[in-house]
Formats: sequence, structure tokens, C-alpha cells
Amino acid sequence: MCVVTFGHGPRLPFRAVLVTLLTDYGVEDDFVGVCHLVIAGIAPEARIIDIAHGIPRHDVRTGALVLRRTLPFAPAGVHIAVVDPEVGGRRRAIALRTAEEDRILVGPDNGVLLPAAERFGGAVEAVEISTSPCRLVPVSATFHGRDLFAPVGAHLATGVALAETGDPLEPSELVALDLPTPRLEGDEVVAHVLAIDRYGNVTLDAEHALLARSGLRLGQSVVVEAGGDEHVAVYAHAFTDVAAGELLLYEDAYRTLALAVNRGSAADRLGATLDGELRVLPA
Amino acid sequence: MCVVTFGHGPRLPFRAVLVTLLTDYGVEDDFVGVCHLVIAGIAPEARIIDIAHGIPRHDVRTGALVLRRTLPFAPAGVHIAVVDPEVGGRRRAIALRTAEEDRILVGPDNGVLLPAAERFGGAVEAVEISTSPCRLVPVSATFHGRDLFAPVGAHLATGVALAETGDPLEPSELVALDLPTPRLEGDEVVAHVLAIDRYGNVTLDAEHALLARSGLRLGQSVVVEAGGDEHVAVYAHAFTDVAAGELLLYEDAYRTLALAVNRGSAADRLGATLDGELRVLPA
Amino acid sequence: MCVVTFGHGPRLPFRAVLVTLLTDYGVEDDFVGVCHLVIAGIAPEARIIDIAHGIPRHDVRTGALVLRRTLPFAPAGVHIAVVDPEVGGRRRAIALRTAEEDRILVGPDNGVLLPAAERFGGAVEAVEISTSPCRLVPVSATFHGRDLFAPVGAHLATGVALAETGDPLEPSELVALDLPTPRLEGDEVVAHVLAIDRYGNVTLDAEHALLARSGLRLGQSVVVEAGGDEHVAVYAHAFTDVAAGELLLYEDAYRTLALAVNRGSAADRLGATLDGELRVLPA
Repeated sequence: MCVVTFGHGPRLPFRAVLVTLLTDYGVEDDFVGVCHLVIAGIAPEARIIDIAHGIPRHDVRTGALVLRRTLPFAPAGVHIAVVDPEVGGRRRAIALRTAEEDRILVGPDNGVLLPAAERFGGAVEAVEISTSPCRLVPVSATFHGRDLFAPVGAHLATGVALAETGDPLEPSELVALDLPTPRLEGDEVVAHVLAIDRYGNVTLDAEHALLARSGLRLGQSVVVEAGGDEHVAVYAHAFTDVAAGELLLYEDAYRTLALAVNRGSAADRLGATLDGELRVLPA
Repeated sequence: MCVVTFGHGPRLPFRAVLVTLLTDYGVEDDFVGVCHLVIAGIAPEARIIDIAHGIPRHDVRTGALVLRRTLPFAPAGVHIAVVDPEVGGRRRAIALRTAEEDRILVGPDNGVLLPAAERFGGAVEAVEISTSPCRLVPVSATFHGRDLFAPVGAHLATGVALAETGDPLEPSELVALDLPTPRLEGDEVVAHVLAIDRYGNVTLDAEHALLARSGLRLGQSVVVEAGGDEHVAVYAHAFTDVAAGELLLYEDAYRTLALAVNRGSAADRLGATLDGELRVLPA
Repeated sequence: MCVVTFGHGPRLPFRAVLVTLLTDYGVEDDFVGVCHLVIAGIAPEARIIDIAHGIPRHDVRTGALVLRRTLPFAPAGVHIAVVDPEVGGRRRAIALRTAEEDRILVGPDNGVLLPAAERFGGAVEAVEISTSPCRLVPVSATFHGRDLFAPVGAHLATGVALAETGDPLEPSELVALDLPTPRLEGDEVVAHVLAIDRYGNVTLDAEHALLARSGLRLGQSVVVEAGGDEHVAVYAHAFTDVAAGELLLYEDAYRTLALAVNRGSAADRLGATLDGELRVLPA
């Protein structure tokens, strides 16, 4: 009666247009608040939801990965992401439309948007918005969230067409984030380190669909090859399925493959580094 | 004309259903944001208010106490609370309805909900929601806020009946939080330490109604018995009513009895420990 | 078609009344959340936007300056600001109406509201609200945000007239924030240090309108006189316009004059102290 599976089946109705915000502005200052004020002034009917503002400062990759994993849980809308170390420089500012669900993504053209767009079939239309007629005038040198991305996103939320907010760009010209690609080689999963958290847990780039096609089965012993060494691990459901100090392979809450040592550091155990390649095969 | 006394008199109209969130997820990451997204997708008309997300990690007791003291200020709605150290384990996940005001509370069955429910006459109906038809599929092992509590709460906010969201439970079987009970013995207030803040201020469990029936009068000198020692204090309105270094007894902003030393630590002075018993009597 | 210049031209329609909040309550605890709950109970149709809650504790001046710089980006509404070191003491609690745009500002009478009000022509009507019929009863000694400012602001958002929320006050009697005044002396800008950030960047009190009337031209060399010493600087657009270690003068994102050393500390270079006077003149 009320099961909702995100990313499948018909979309639920959403009368107010949704505007989501993801930034590295932090939650202490007035940066986020003033973006809300600008959006509310232009698009009073829009509903604003903050996805996260604690992205590490200038960490475009983490911003891109968080946007990619959260947008599938969001109703379609206008999705603004601002992690922008080159603000005021020559990087382009863009808005794009996705192939599926007509989502609009707005932000700097530095790769922060594209991984999320790919979750919805990629970008099929894009505009350069640096001198958008929807921007605030004057645009400051350092606060494009307020002066450019928020007002352009808000106008899009009121129904202004993407083509009217900027100059056309070929979607293929957009700056991609340089991420490795996981693959299957026979029974082996060849994956890479996407992120390492403060506990030493290692997030890989292999996701559920790829795992389902691999030879790995839950409960099984597996071998993890990393840096020339082999490590035995259990492909488990939860940390508590293995003893303290043991290595486990598991799908995290976003169905992405991850490695952990129960009460220890998988990153230390494996000598893991960002983007480093690992191989996982049945034992 | 416009005096509002919470908890008394007719409720004010509230057309959009309110969903409140209280968690220990912190405000840096995307945990809270993605819960908002899930709720907005299922219940686009609901209004979401964050009560607090900075509950110390896994501190069920503090979560329960903060929920209990804040809900009386909230319009009736669906109130989700997630402080859940046993997530993915065998603890039940529940939703309940209160005797007064028909509030719906949703969260793990570990005591975080019941003290707040008791403010509204206790639970009169409850369901186990671990395999609710309203959950997201699949439910992850670690993020039940997103996969279980948010979607069940959101469906309840759209008007789905509590009985349709899970399997019936006897309200008397719900897990209670183990809290001591304050009492009067003649003129004496027998109270216990509920919380100690970082300044060494000590919150007791005696509240306004009990104090009003006690022999204590504002402005009076009182004796505080703690750990076999007697301490003289003033039952005062504000810190500034006593000299630096002096002990005072006061009602805090939630009308709960508390002890402080002006510019010092009452916890150190009294040797206070969590749940420890103290006696307060007229000097 | 969609250029919006704040502070000029006709205001955009805003159907739901906006209530903004700015406090020093922080984002960890339930202080802000319970203010939202109180407002939602009284004014269910109002929309609440948080401007900032990370104002340094009890720093009235910073609160006032942040309110002043952000309100011009906000649709007109009810603007609550609570930075209130004297809460529970004898300071007045006030609500005021501005000459332009009929904005309502609510907060303690300690100077936190007036600099923002001056952006809209100053206060033309004011009331003392300490015993407002719109307050919660009882008002606690320490949490006037919840018990006084939020409920009075919420009632004002529902359309209650300012005069009905408290006792009339002469706007001229309101407590002003003691801030120096920048001025032109011939070609020279005489300005003062408003704020010093953690990077040693120095915000002055001279704003765009005054600068436009001065002899300073972008790209020019200027002399900064501070503490009896003369320093050469460039009046630049961005940090990257000068070499590392060089002093620059620039307009920040709020069009306020500021001084920085590229990859260094302007405060150290100039020996800058809060409110200290500097002179800037063409080289």
C-alpha cells in the first residue's frame, strides 16, 4: 500500500517546486541563510531543503559524491551544489537538465554536478550562467552562491526555461570529475578507493548492480588484493558479524561496497590510498 | 488577546501536518538532509521542523529528555526521534499514539519516545514497524532514520492509519527508560541528578508541580543533602541573586529544579553523579 | 527578464509571511528548534528562515552587523534577532517597524536591531514587549527567545498590529549600537575597523556609496595610514590581483571596504584593533 522504492515506478506528485542546497559553507555563518533569503525572495512558492553544508572546504570530489548518493532520494527539482575553490576565476558557472526526470542541476563547472547527473541519464541540455539575466547585480567576486547560483536556481524553480537563464553549452564540454571505473574481470571485482572516513573505513566505487553480477555471495570468505598483499575477509551484513580485529567487506547504507576492520582501521590494514585499486575475489 | 499557554486550552489550528525530527546525526553530514528529502517525497504537504540533531551520539537518555521537554511547545503532529545505538540489531522499531492530542511518535523501542509520550497521557496504541509496508525497500543495516523512521513517519503525516503501518503491540510492552522518580517526604524534596552540563550545573528531576506542593519558597535559604554532606543554598530566581562562589537552587527554563554555583561548578561542590539522590529542605 | 536588484524597484510578492531568526544559540542544542515550534504553533502559515545561529555568544555587535548586511537580501517580514547577554536583567525587549518596507524587527533593546533598521530608514514605531499579551506565560528568566521574542514575532506574522503587542516607546529612546562613522575628508576615506576575521582580514565601515564618491579608483595604488605608519596597497578586485605578501584594499561580498594581505594577515601588518581609525588616500 505504501512501499516507495526510489528511482523506480511513477514519481509522486510534488506541488511546490523543490530547491535543494549542498555547499561547503558550514553551518556557523550566514552564508547558507542568505542563500535561502535570496531564493525565497525570487521563488516564494519554492520549498528549500538543505542536503548538507559540512562538505570539507573546497573538496569538490566529496561534494560530488554526496550529491550523487543523495539525489536519488530526492523528489525531482532544482538542485544547487556549491563547492567552488575557483570562484571568481575562469571556471564556468552552469545549469543543466538531466535526461531522466528533467532535474535541473546548478553549480560551478568543476565536476561537482556531473556524477549526480549521470544517476539520471546524464546532462541533455546545459547553459553557461556567469552573466545570466537571472543573477543578482552586481555579482561579487567571492559569493557566487548568493549572487549567481541561488538566484538562477530560484528563477528556474519559478518556471523560467533553462535556455533563458544563460548561453547554450554542449553537455559533452562540461568538466567531468576524474573518477576511476570499477569493473568485473571474471569472478573478480576490480574496485578503487573512493573515500576513507575517520574510522579508517574504506568506501570503494563498486555498487550494488555490479556486485549482483559478480561471484561474491553474502556470508562468503573473500580475498582482497591490495598493494601486492592478500587479505582474507568475510563478505558480511554488519560489523558484528565478524570478531574484533577482523576484516569485513559489506554494502554500506548507500549500497556501495566498503571495507572495515571491526574496532580497527581497514585503511591501515590495507595501506589504502584515495583512488588506489583493489581486487576482491571469492576465497 | 494573544496569550498562548502551551499544554492548556484548545489547540491552535495547524493545517499542514507537522513532522518533527530529533536525532544524534549531527549537522555536518547528509544524514538529516536525506531524511528531509525522503519525507518531502512521500508527504509533500508536511512541514518538517528540526528539534535538535546534536544529541550526543548514542545517548538515548539525553535524546529522551530533550524530546520530553520540547514536545509540549510543539503543535501536535508526527514526532520522529532517532537515537539508536542498537540499529540493525534486535531492538524493535515502533510508532505509537498518545492518549492526549493524538500525537504520533516514531523511533526505536529503546526508551527514547516514552518519557515524551507520558507528557501526553502515555501511549494508547503502538505498532512494530520493522517490516512496515511504508518502509523504503531495501532497508539498510545502519540507516533506519532514512529507510524506516522517516518514510513511516511521512506516511503517517499523509493520513495513513497507525494500524496500517505495522503490527500491533501492547503499549505496556514498550521499553521504558529507567529513570528515578522524585518525591516529597514531608517538607523535603527527594530528587535525583538527571543531567550535568559542561559548566557543572546540575539538573534534577523535580519539576514545577512537585515544587509548588513542597515547603520551598523562592528567596529562602535551603539545605541540600548530598553524599552525606549538608550544603546551604539559596532558592533563587537567577544566578545573579547570589554572590560568586555561592550555591543556588533554581527553576531552569523548562521549570525543572536545578543547582548551580555562581561562576563555579555545582557538580564538583556536591560530588554529583548521574541518578544520584539529593534531598532539599528548608533551612 | 529576471534581474533582481535588492533594495531597488518594486518588491516581489510574498504570500506567506516570512519570519527570520538570527541568534547566538548555536546549532547543537534544541534552543533554535523550540523557537521554530513556538512560531509554528502560533503562526502556522508563516515561513521561517534561519539567517544564522553561530553568532559568537553574547557578541551583540557581530549579531547587529550580520543582521544589517543580510536583511537587504530578505523579503520584508518579521525579523527576530536574539543576542542577549542581559537576558532576565533590566534591558528592554522591543519590537519596531521600519520607515521603509514596513519591516518588523524583534529582539532585546541592546543595539542588535538598530543598524539593520537604519538600512530601511530607521524605526518609526516601537513597543516595549516584556509583558506583551503575546508572550508565553510564564516567561522564564533565561530563555526569552522561546518565551517572548518568538511568540511576539509569530503573532506579528499573523497580522496582529505592532501597537497591540506592547507598550509604546519613542523610537529615539532605543539603545543604539556604538559604532564609529566613516567620512570623506577631501580625497581621503576616514574609516574604522568593524571586524577582524581569523585570517587577519580587516573589514572597515566604509561602504560602496561612500567609496563611489571618494577619489579611489579600482586598480590604483593607495596609501593606508594606520597607527602613524603609511602602507602602500593596491585597490584591487580580488586577492589574486596582488602578489603573495602584498597589501590590498577591496570591496568584500557585501560591498564593504576591506583590507587583506594575500596569504598573510592585514591585521598584523597594520596593527589593526576594533574601532581603530584608518585613512585611505590615493598614492
